[in-house]
Amino acid sequence: MTAWYQNPAKAINHHAAANAQTHQDNLTKPKGSLGELERVAVRLAGLQGVDKPSASRPHIAIFAGDHGVMAEQVSAFPQVVTQQMLANFATGGACIAVMAKHLGASLEVVDCGAAATEYDTTGISQQQVAKGTKNFTQAPAMTLDECEQALAIGKRSVEQAMAAGADIYVAGEMGIGNTCAASALACLLLDKSAEEMTGRGTGVDDTTLARKIQAVSRAKILYQHEAKDALKTLANVGGFEMCAMTGAYVRAAQLGLLCVVDGFISSVSALVAVRLNPSVADWLLYGHRSAEYAHAQVLAALGAKPLLDLGFRLGEGSGAAASLMLIRLACEIHANMATFAQAGVATA
Amino acid sequence: MTAWYQNPAKAINHHAAANAQTHQDNLTKPKGSLGELERVAVRLAGLQGVDKPSASRPHIAIFAGDHGVMAEQVSAFPQVVTQQMLANFATGGACIAVMAKHLGASLEVVDCGAAATEYDTTGISQQQVAKGTKNFTQAPAMTLDECEQALAIGKRSVEQAMAAGADIYVAGEMGIGNTCAASALACLLLDKSAEEMTGRGTGVDDTTLARKIQAVSRAKILYQHEAKDALKTLANVGGFEMCAMTGAYVRAAQLGLLCVVDGFISSVSALVAVRLNPSVADWLLYGHRSAEYAHAQVLAALGAKPLLDLGFRLGEGSGAAASLMLIRLACEIHANMATFAQAGVATA
Repeated sequence: MTAWYQNPAKAINHHAAANAQTHQDNLTKPKGSLGELERVAVRLAGLQGVDKPSASRPHIAIFAGDHGVMAEQVSAFPQVVTQQMLANFATGGACIAVMAKHLGASLEVVDCGAAATEYDTTGISQQQVAKGTKNFTQAPAMTLDECEQALAIGKRSVEQAMAAGADIYVAGEMGIGNTCAASALACLLLDKSAEEMTGRGTGVDDTTLARKIQAVSRAKILYQHEAKDALKTLANVGGFEMCAMTGAYVRAAQLGLLCVVDGFISSVSALVAVRLNPSVADWLLYGHRSAEYAHAQVLAALGAKPLLDLGFRLGEGSGAAASLMLIRLACEIHANMATFAQAGVATA
Repeated sequence: MTAWYQNPAKAINHHAAANAQTHQDNLTKPKGSLGELERVAVRLAGLQGVDKPSASRPHIAIFAGDHGVMAEQVSAFPQVVTQQMLANFATGGACIAVMAKHLGASLEVVDCGAAATEYDTTGISQQQVAKGTKNFTQAPAMTLDECEQALAIGKRSVEQAMAAGADIYVAGEMGIGNTCAASALACLLLDKSAEEMTGRGTGVDDTTLARKIQAVSRAKILYQHEAKDALKTLANVGGFEMCAMTGAYVRAAQLGLLCVVDGFISSVSALVAVRLNPSVADWLLYGHRSAEYAHAQVLAALGAKPLLDLGFRLGEGSGAAASLMLIRLACEIHANMATFAQAGVATA
């Protein structure tokens, strides 16, 4: 039986993309002189199957989860910050909440598995798979059943966003310790050493970085034999928030909803999605090149060139959200500039 | 007697910048995790002398002028396009007009010296210094008196924008052949060879590029003996639109209005401004790294690191305008994110 995440992505409309390219070439500017914004507009036209693509109704989903590997002391922040930040997203004080408001984007805050026992859950969608993952240096982070449950969180989020009329989707994440888990995942999927894939995350000191590298090395030893199986690898070392992002990317591609991928953790989740289902790749745009050490290698594996490079290393979907403004601008220019004929301007 | 453009720029408020840095460090994110957007917010606080800077009322001025060096056939487009594009700016079909509308920015279109004799001037501020510059391969492009007149166009534009309540200013340019003039200017000011500073502009072929290099080489020979005098050099090879931008940058710095510099031609004009009056440098932000060949060297001379690198090579202030969205976002985040104390989030 085929799992839902193996069904193919919606096909690109190459005719619409070709029309959009012709239109771009007729606008009153030297051909190609708007660089990436021209490529974005043409690509979106092909994906949306329209002459004039839109990115005016963005939906941002923040998926949070805790990580058992925090027992190895791999972060500068205490684990309780995951639940505290969930509240901060819901009450509007976190960066992505400020960005969402500024962008006029809908914001969905999902607890996929925080370790918290009790906290103010107002404005937070409660979908905990478990109270945090297991410590992957000792045992798989989650079971395959838990992994499938967490993938389905992202699937539902996309389906609801589509139903509500979203035309572009950002998945962000929060989870203290999750750069360590993402490094382990990248390490296994790309067959790299722990040193190559492990960075400072939120800004850990040398001692903590050494512990992170040790935890990732241990994961490599424990789970390398299953590394060809992306789903099993996700379950072995990933987090519930990463599963949700992976599920969201796959479902968005199947339904034909553009996704903007954020930084390191989002890109590793995108890599899992593409390994599970290569047809998903067409539907992923990359918003921002993270300052996190290993992001460049993950992007290279995905053949991705992000729009922005502003030195962010925050997560929360913040880099993707910043890039939304440029994607939207690309659509506005494509739709509203005059052609040479309309403006009576001579061509080269 | 001191010329107006030699008066010092407004002083930076270092106390306000320090306060803004402290505030940034207290916001609910790892320190430094918003990279360039944090630096922008702190820098703007110091320039505006406030705790919470703003960039919500942008003014965009487009200065256009024609170039006598077009007699050397240095562009892919005919000269008439300058006046045609003036109309396209005024009627809303040009890229920068679409961007200004999207940004809610006021747009001012100034004819500083198009070669046109008659055209529809509706919505265009008529301030022609002359009907185009002279061919600098034969004689200086303009007299010092004309140069001062053109500097004053930018000065007035800034004064009017300030009076109308603008809190951030973009100067853009249009002028067929003006990358050739800007290359000559950069070549003289930075003492580089014509080959090093001359690129394809709107996208000229090899033959036209060779003619551009020849024209710039000729300028180097004719005017090198005066290259230490930035004003004289501007008059020798520059354009009226570049003079206006230079004047705008200087006056904005004197009055304390932030300026976002665009691509190659704008940056060369900024270089002239900084040579005339080094105190201006503090007030210039750089929006976009142009695809034009020599921009990197001009930026290096200015110690500038632009926010965006999207492969634009259009001019019109388009790269600066695109970056305005990020500058505005930086201000929103700075003003509206919760601190660790406000949100009850534990620190590292």
